Amino acid sequence: MPRVVVDVMLKPEILDPQGQAVANALPRLGVSDVASVRIGRRIEIEFTGEPDLDRAREIADKLLANPVIEDFTVRVVTDETAGAHS
Amino acid sequence: MPRVVVDVMLKPEILDPQGQAVANALPRLGVSDVASVRIGRRIEIEFTGEPDLDRAREIADKLLANPVIEDFTVRVVTDETAGAHS
Amino acid sequence: MPRVVVDVMLKPEILDPQGQAVANALPRLGVSDVASVRIGRRIEIEFTGEPDLDRAREIADKLLANPVIEDFTVRVVTDETAGAHS
Amino acid sequence: MPRVVVDVMLKPEILDPQGQAVANALPRLGVSDVASVRIGRRIEIEFTGEPDLDRAREIADKLLANPVIEDFTVRVVTDETAGAHS
Repeated sequence: MPRVVVDVMLKPEILDPQGQAVANALPRLGVSDVASVRIGRRIEIEFTGEPDLDRAREIADKLLANPVIEDFTVRVVTDETAGAHS
Repeated sequence: MPRVVVDVMLKPEILDPQGQAVANALPRLGVSDVASVRIGRRIEIEFTGEPDLDRAREIADKLLANPVIEDFTVRVVTDETAGAHS
Repeated sequence: MPRVVVDVMLKPEILDPQGQAVANALPRLGVSDVASVRIGRRIEIEFTGEPDLDRAREIADKLLANPVIEDFTVRVVTDETAGAHS
Repeated sequence: MPRVVVDVMLKPEILDPQGQAVANALPRLGVSDVASVRIGRRIEIEFTGEPDLDRAREIADKLLANPVIEDFTVRVVTDETAGAHS
């Protein structure tokens, strides 16, 4: 079923200590080629009818993201992750 | 710069009360055609060299997701959100 | 103003990879005496009248926590953090 | 075992859309006497020896909170939630 995905990330200039913690933990896994890790939110919205991008954008703006510190994107997804599932 | 995106979502059979809260708040915005809202995490990993999917999968498995309750996908992203920015 | 605080933590038997990431990052800060880090949520609810623990418990159960994987506690707080602010 | 609890909340002047979503969902539960809901993080740190508040404060400052948008408090907890568990 098609759905709308809202990706919310801290603005680039806002420090992300949780991502920093993951980045700092990587050497213990033997990983030394990661420049940065940023942790945001991914929200999946299923509509009963046609996915509605304008609606989703309004929902994101009011209930999912804080525009002062976060950026968000909204898009319709059909089978994006089908082949990528690990 | 290409980067790896890890999407982590609760498994479908696991209740998501935070998504439920958003869904329950929608009628107050005049939205009545949303069937469900699920809130997960989106992690962006930038590598100093080539994005490394296997590495990213290992990082996700050890530090980003709990495989008992969450599913994750890993993919390389170049300009996915470029045109979709709200 | 008195308010109700709801603390939500993953059940002890559920792996917490985000806490694990923080724990694994500590040696880089020179910290070697931490046994574990667990990351949960703290929710502060302000009531217009008297803080209502039963109400808060119901809200937590329906909208804040997933009882299958998380434990929560509910308590009234008055000036708990007043002297402890860092 | 005594442990250190770090509470991280968005600064009061920073909008919290996730808390807002919960607040907006409450009328559907028949709850009309809640003025505000704020969602933060609670981190429990167990030390192998004596809980170390200064250490915990440093960890919070570097890996758990973003001082630009969040406030945090650090305290030693022994049996705080013992009687309050729901």
